[in-house]
Amino acid sequence: MDEYLREIIDSVDNSSGSLRRAMSYSIFAGGKRIRPIFAIAACEAVGGPLDQVLPAACALELIHTYSLIHDDLPAMDDDDYRRGVLTNHKVFGEATAILAGDALLTKAFEVLADGRRFTSPPDAILKVTSEIARAAGDSGMVGGQMIDMESEHRDIDMDMLTNLHRKKTGALITVSVRSGAILGGGDENQVERLSEYGGCVGLAFQISDDILDVVGDQEKMGKKTGMDEARGKKTYTSLLGLDESRKRSRELINRAIDALSSFDGRAEALRAIGEYVIERQA
Amino acid sequence: MDEYLREIIDSVDNSSGSLRRAMSYSIFAGGKRIRPIFAIAACEAVGGPLDQVLPAACALELIHTYSLIHDDLPAMDDDDYRRGVLTNHKVFGEATAILAGDALLTKAFEVLADGRRFTSPPDAILKVTSEIARAAGDSGMVGGQMIDMESEHRDIDMDMLTNLHRKKTGALITVSVRSGAILGGGDENQVERLSEYGGCVGLAFQISDDILDVVGDQEKMGKKTGMDEARGKKTYTSLLGLDESRKRSRELINRAIDALSSFDGRAEALRAIGEYVIERQA
Repeated sequence: MDEYLREIIDSVDNSSGSLRRAMSYSIFAGGKRIRPIFAIAACEAVGGPLDQVLPAACALELIHTYSLIHDDLPAMDDDDYRRGVLTNHKVFGEATAILAGDALLTKAFEVLADGRRFTSPPDAILKVTSEIARAAGDSGMVGGQMIDMESEHRDIDMDMLTNLHRKKTGALITVSVRSGAILGGGDENQVERLSEYGGCVGLAFQISDDILDVVGDQEKMGKKTGMDEARGKKTYTSLLGLDESRKRSRELINRAIDALSSFDGRAEALRAIGEYVIERQA
Repeated sequence: MDEYLREIIDSVDNSSGSLRRAMSYSIFAGGKRIRPIFAIAACEAVGGPLDQVLPAACALELIHTYSLIHDDLPAMDDDDYRRGVLTNHKVFGEATAILAGDALLTKAFEVLADGRRFTSPPDAILKVTSEIARAAGDSGMVGGQMIDMESEHRDIDMDMLTNLHRKKTGALITVSVRSGAILGGGDENQVERLSEYGGCVGLAFQISDDILDVVGDQEKMGKKTGMDEARGKKTYTSLLGLDESRKRSRELINRAIDALSSFDGRAEALRAIGEYVIERQA
């Protein structure tokens, strides 16, 4: 995965001194590659060849990374640290951080549509490209971030919070799983069951993030904890309490693993990701 | 064109109060729709049906609009007015302006890859999507904006200035023409000659923009003129003088129109755009 991402970043135009460096900085700043792993594991679950999903897996990581750079900007969450290192705009300045984000988002679609990289049929690539764009845009990630900004210091209920997170983080995780299944040649029924898995795991991930912001170790997390409360952000833990949040997250993971019941041993990686969510919040 | 754009904006998710309004504001803030016109005129020149190029034409306008919103941000050019009205961040705030730009860029690829909108073969759509992403990203528009930011108050020569503009504005104009030609079913030779046309007209456009920043009427332009000099930006007029800049621009338009010599009357619209560039700088 990292080799493939390195190759993409190395191919970035280097006429400007800092654009490529800024893009590279955030791509290789210690991300867990969760979205690519979801895509690859879903491809494996339907028995598809892994090289078929690599470009999409990279595109998902490029999109995720751009969203972190923009979310950290002074006008947005104004964060100085991310994954234990300075945020992009603290190192390269605000203008370069905005442009590095823009370039990473654009590069994702360049990689997705690049005929030289793909072995899948053009229809499948277009379908995946369209779904990824929808998950990343106004009806998904960007829309979720907008709702998140507008919800600070306001009273929101569980339904609104769940809608926010389904958009802000859930949509891209779900489409990661779907992309792997579609490009791996999964049938419609398999894609649907993997979508159910993705939706549940995505939300469980967010709940466990909220839990870790309360109980997590700042050093291990690589970022300040307790920030949600400091910002007056409503979270699962502030609405439900710690115990109930842990319970919800576990229920979601159970539903996710149930959705895999008709898959054989090739879905082991997806099952293991579910277990990992439970373990990290324990 | 505007009807189609209206339909796209109306389909934007409206869970957040301001994201759709901010996107709509800049899309309908009086743009000249130059890039869609190039795409449609190129499609016409190769005898293609116009409905085949409409989604790509819209995508190009969405990308152009996002780039204006981000370029105007305080961290970038810090402009208060654009096309005679307040810039996006002055109306909606910086965070919303960043997100509206992100959402417009993402929407462009959603529209491009949306199977329901297209009548062209998937290969052609993928080719166009890939070319548009390349023209909009690090090796094109974003890269050019980065070089532009880094060039302020520095000595740059004609070659560097031309490289900057070929990336910052030329690449997207060239790909607009190419997209129209490819989706319209033009053969390789036609696409190549239309690329030559696009490259020349794109650069001529930039030179005439520089000229208008010196001699233009502030009211007619809808933005402050004389800003390039105030910012210490090198321009064609500051490097070459007004007369020589006019001459260069005219030479480029002549080359552009020469590139159309083997096209019949269906290339009239492209020829007329060339004439328009000359007239506006007169």
